[in-house]
Amino acid sequence: MGAVKPIEYADAPAAVRAVFDDIKATRKVDDVNNFWKHLANDPATLRRTWESIKEVMAPGALDPLTKEMIYLAVSVSNGCGYCIASHTAAARKAGMTDAMFGEVMAVTGMANETNRLANGYRVPVDPAFER
Amino acid sequence: MGAVKPIEYADAPAAVRAVFDDIKATRKVDDVNNFWKHLANDPATLRRTWESIKEVMAPGALDPLTKEMIYLAVSVSNGCGYCIASHTAAARKAGMTDAMFGEVMAVTGMANETNRLANGYRVPVDPAFER
Amino acid sequence: MGAVKPIEYADAPAAVRAVFDDIKATRKVDDVNNFWKHLANDPATLRRTWESIKEVMAPGALDPLTKEMIYLAVSVSNGCGYCIASHTAAARKAGMTDAMFGEVMAVTGMANETNRLANGYRVPVDPAFER
Amino acid sequence: MGAVKPIEYADAPAAVRAVFDDIKATRKVDDVNNFWKHLANDPATLRRTWESIKEVMAPGALDPLTKEMIYLAVSVSNGCGYCIASHTAAARKAGMTDAMFGEVMAVTGMANETNRLANGYRVPVDPAFER
Amino acid sequence: MGAVKPIEYADAPAAVRAVFDDIKATRKVDDVNNFWKHLANDPATLRRTWESIKEVMAPGALDPLTKEMIYLAVSVSNGCGYCIASHTAAARKAGMTDAMFGEVMAVTGMANETNRLANGYRVPVDPAFER
Amino acid sequence: MGAVKPIEYADAPAAVRAVFDDIKATRKVDDVNNFWKHLANDPATLRRTWESIKEVMAPGALDPLTKEMIYLAVSVSNGCGYCIASHTAAARKAGMTDAMFGEVMAVTGMANETNRLANGYRVPVDPAFER
Repeated sequence: MGAVKPIEYADAPAAVRAVFDDIKATRKVDDVNNFWKHLANDPATLRRTWESIKEVMAPGALDPLTKEMIYLAVSVSNGCGYCIASHTAAARKAGMTDAMFGEVMAVTGMANETNRLANGYRVPVDPAFER
Repeated sequence: MGAVKPIEYADAPAAVRAVFDDIKATRKVDDVNNFWKHLANDPATLRRTWESIKEVMAPGALDPLTKEMIYLAVSVSNGCGYCIASHTAAARKAGMTDAMFGEVMAVTGMANETNRLANGYRVPVDPAFER
Repeated sequence: MGAVKPIEYADAPAAVRAVFDDIKATRKVDDVNNFWKHLANDPATLRRTWESIKEVMAPGALDPLTKEMIYLAVSVSNGCGYCIASHTAAARKAGMTDAMFGEVMAVTGMANETNRLANGYRVPVDPAFER
Repeated sequence: MGAVKPIEYADAPAAVRAVFDDIKATRKVDDVNNFWKHLANDPATLRRTWESIKEVMAPGALDPLTKEMIYLAVSVSNGCGYCIASHTAAARKAGMTDAMFGEVMAVTGMANETNRLANGYRVPVDPAFER
Repeated sequence: MGAVKPIEYADAPAAVRAVFDDIKATRKVDDVNNFWKHLANDPATLRRTWESIKEVMAPGALDPLTKEMIYLAVSVSNGCGYCIASHTAAARKAGMTDAMFGEVMAVTGMANETNRLANGYRVPVDPAFER
Repeated sequence: MGAVKPIEYADAPAAVRAVFDDIKATRKVDDVNNFWKHLANDPATLRRTWESIKEVMAPGALDPLTKEMIYLAVSVSNGCGYCIASHTAAARKAGMTDAMFGEVMAVTGMANETNRLANGYRVPVDPAFER
């Protein structure tokens, strides 16, 4: 009861189709992935999220591969199953090798460990790190 | 009551001094930061954590700057105040510019947003992303 | 090995049946959902959790729909699959429309994004917000 | 080292001033709070975040008070100190009474408890809640 | 604006005093700690939370020290500063030694690391662990 | 696309087999569980993680059952499905009874609830708990 259904291009209103078209053109893919088909139930959120993602993930001071690996690390840390699957694929497409994947996981794991050690030992921030 | 006190080099047993010496030599710093001084209360955890960090953060398929930015992104996502401060400093030292910092934050923010949209809309993993 | 099995009404001891009866009467449902059948393995936790939920979710300064939407937002933020499914259904039953669902998701997503931006930029609390 | 400094209106470039002006006009406040002054270090993120917040928090199917209480509940659940302080103030301004605050906290607390009980008991989703 | 103020015994209504008296008698302390003084702003939540805590933390199949260490581990994992401080003190009072504290931290850290490795490698549950 | 495949003993390089052999000997099991077969894709992370786990989970100031219950509580709190399944089994093997399981869940649930109440009420640390 109440679960949201995906909206396919053929059934989508014009505002949704426009976003789908832009995703497909920007990413050079034939169809959008399930995330967008579900967000399409709320066209305003679909458009806002896509425009934000497009802006944030565009090449800038960081290259797309680095951005995708950061996205993956955060998704792994948060335990979002869908996001781990989709951003592993996206990072692979952007050039992440098996060795890089292993290192992203290793860093993400260590950060999660030492975050808790710092919490538990109640470590005060060193003056050198303060504002 | 019960809060752990930092252990300074002068007061540290030999096993702790050996780790402190290795941290200082590896990182080319005059003193270790508060995190290590607190972990020194448990020499086994101090040694194990340092050896793991040294191995994980060494240059490999990913360069040290990329690793530090991933570490920072995870720490920000987890809300660990000490870790955000120390890894912002570490990433800066490894070459993170103001523009890079801004992009790490932007990607981390977006990942946290879309992780929840994927959760809430209960998006099934696309067959293309499946194992 | 070790996974907990649900306990059905027919097999339940009197203490569990009493809670099941109260849930069914309070919610006007024919059977309790899986959450309660699993908690029934620990009758004290079953009773305590139900009594707390009944008290917390009763109409008060906030109406039941608002409470269910807050419950859903927290469950989405935490990524609890069962809870997202059950509280989406509960919120729908309490009157959540498609448009409301979309807005709950949008607010939950934005809060998760800006929570991390505030963490990462280490924003100090404005004096006006302090105690 | 490396902590971001807030940017005041007087020192801000035109693109930042334009956002600050819109925040002040929309919210009818004399100055923006620290969150925006810190984001101003990255004008693109400042603009994008403000435009998203403005769109998401505008009255719609849900009223501003309900949205602020959801924002607060998520921030409390995530443990973001700055966000808890700022969104408690925002919700108060939108009409949250002491009794409402107490109920938001009670629901947020219970949701966090039952989310973990559902995780730990590995409760399968009821067919009635499935898509 | 809006931050909750602690309520001292002398200023508390009878319903709050009754809970404070029970906490002091149960724990053999002269005064309740800040957590309870803040919850006192919502007497129903104060009472419900105390009764639940009293029931859950009483000796049972697990002794009080084990329960306090689990409470501490969860609080460290969640990064709740107040809870880390108060439950470190409570665990110390229940008999946690320095060596035990170190091991609680070590286990908590490792669990947080391997939780993310399991997420990131998308490890399927072994049939032997399935229900 | 991109999902990691498990590596079986028969197909594993010598460095991986050595770790698998040590896991099997230490735990007195015929085969390693899926977690290790997936980590085997990164032999350095496999070895480092196993050596850390072996050291951290060995009997010390805390017995193995207590450590497994803490591991389980953290995994439940984080919502790691694989880890909940595997550490429930491990704790059962170490002697966790049904009653103990129920109490671990109850404490984990309460800790998650009161962590958020402490966050939301912005409770300051009592001087008695300060360093």
